[in-house]
Amino acid sequence: MSEHPTIADIRGAAERITPFINRTPVLASTTINRITGGEVCFKCENFQKVGAFKIRGATNAVSKLSNDQLSRGVTTHSSGNHAAAVALAAASRNAKVVVVMPRSAPGVKKEAVAGYGATIVYCDPGHRAREAAMAAVVDDTGAHFIHPYDDNDVIEGQATAALELLQQVPGLDMIITPIGGGGLISGTALATHGLSPQTRVVGVEPEGADDAFRSFRAGKLIPVDEPRSIADGLLAPLSERTLQIIGQHVENVVTVSEEQIIHAMRTMWERMKIVVEPSAALPLAAIVAGKLDVSGARVGIIVSGGNVDMDRLPW
Amino acid sequence: MSEHPTIADIRGAAERITPFINRTPVLASTTINRITGGEVCFKCENFQKVGAFKIRGATNAVSKLSNDQLSRGVTTHSSGNHAAAVALAAASRNAKVVVVMPRSAPGVKKEAVAGYGATIVYCDPGHRAREAAMAAVVDDTGAHFIHPYDDNDVIEGQATAALELLQQVPGLDMIITPIGGGGLISGTALATHGLSPQTRVVGVEPEGADDAFRSFRAGKLIPVDEPRSIADGLLAPLSERTLQIIGQHVENVVTVSEEQIIHAMRTMWERMKIVVEPSAALPLAAIVAGKLDVSGARVGIIVSGGNVDMDRLPW
Repeated sequence: MSEHPTIADIRGAAERITPFINRTPVLASTTINRITGGEVCFKCENFQKVGAFKIRGATNAVSKLSNDQLSRGVTTHSSGNHAAAVALAAASRNAKVVVVMPRSAPGVKKEAVAGYGATIVYCDPGHRAREAAMAAVVDDTGAHFIHPYDDNDVIEGQATAALELLQQVPGLDMIITPIGGGGLISGTALATHGLSPQTRVVGVEPEGADDAFRSFRAGKLIPVDEPRSIADGLLAPLSERTLQIIGQHVENVVTVSEEQIIHAMRTMWERMKIVVEPSAALPLAAIVAGKLDVSGARVGIIVSGGNVDMDRLPW
Repeated sequence: MSEHPTIADIRGAAERITPFINRTPVLASTTINRITGGEVCFKCENFQKVGAFKIRGATNAVSKLSNDQLSRGVTTHSSGNHAAAVALAAASRNAKVVVVMPRSAPGVKKEAVAGYGATIVYCDPGHRAREAAMAAVVDDTGAHFIHPYDDNDVIEGQATAALELLQQVPGLDMIITPIGGGGLISGTALATHGLSPQTRVVGVEPEGADDAFRSFRAGKLIPVDEPRSIADGLLAPLSERTLQIIGQHVENVVTVSEEQIIHAMRTMWERMKIVVEPSAALPLAAIVAGKLDVSGARVGIIVSGGNVDMDRLPW
């Protein structure tokens, strides 16, 4: 496995992708501070292009491809946000995109991917079915596969969200992110380690998809067979690469229940007036549920995305 | 009637209320620009304290009261946001607050008002029932009545939203606000006239509560008997004062249908990832419905508020 991205690599990624992404604002809320007892700020990647931080990694990965590679197209598998991100990033370089998606992905995410001009190949839910469909696409087309997280270029890109946050709000005691496959928290941990080593990084997982929680404690990959959660962006398993980075630079991984996720999501909608997807609510859910004590601490939360089907809200 | 607030008055209000309010961010969206053909930015008063611009006027009005006046308490009538604003503004000076609200006001607004420690007196829906209930409260308690809009101190405060917007985004061609009783648009028009006279100010009303639309054209108050709209913040009638300011400094008033309001509201939730109440969607609704042509123009929209009952969404 290659070396992990350095802070210099991450700064390079930030320079590369800045023209193509939004510098998202950081919001705070008196009510949330009262509820949590901390001083909590929210890096709003739900306001990012494609509605999620995923455009950062996808844009960085695509921007490193040669014209020759791009001429054979790019491809990926994803429950949605990474797919939309790859589609948009590739479209800006006029490359063809094929996306493998589970049939069960939210309609709003399918539409977004198609709207950016990608071709969708549907597969059954589950990690293995996706990988198989993906391999077939690569065999057929020779397209370049951009993994949603097990890829240093993607991790470098995701790291730029924490890089920006630490520039916008210096001196944070803690940064909290959700964990799916581990791309966001890996990038966050590497950026934070390089830029603000005294800031602790913590990850939050759904109880029903807690492979990172188990793997972090065991020190080796412990997959979950049938991960289930309303946080559809967090069902993917860690890779050796992301587990290694988490093991080195993340202080703790905690879990939250479905009810706690929905409650925190609704709190963010009602109190902060922002639309966030279930995955983005996990950090606040962990605090409100008492899984993380932030009293008196200055805390940054990366709000991972805001793509929600308005006809299927969980309340 | 006293003179209208000047730009110096408005700057004074801004200084007075700054410690008590949020400097709200201005957001833009590539998707919205593509839909509208303009360069549209949104002054997010849904992120303001109490979730609406109303805290500006209420704070300014309360801050001008003497301790003697405050000792008798303050009172107001409102469908909700102004009531919450007065309650919070008065609480910060330890004054008692009585709020007259229609029984039909959204539950989320009733809870907010009670949550700030105000006593609620319920009345029947309709402007006249409110005024009567209000008069009884003033008779009983000697409380100082802070009118939701027919009050120069309130208008001065509301004007600070446009003042900030014009500082954050100089050189706008047009600013668009919703119109209820006319406090926000009056303040916006006075601030804009003083600070950026080349910027046109336009107001938008629901078709079912279009007294400003009619009165603006007739040059005199033409009330609507039973105003109805999902935009519950926009049912109040203009006053002589607000009509006069609108007549002098507002370029146009247009109307939109209920369907257009709901569509624009949903577009803002889905595309911008912000929670806005129906009233706040009127400016975008007017553009999307073709009532205002903004192609090629730099446009500022004041997003008036974000207080919505999540259990009663209109889709």
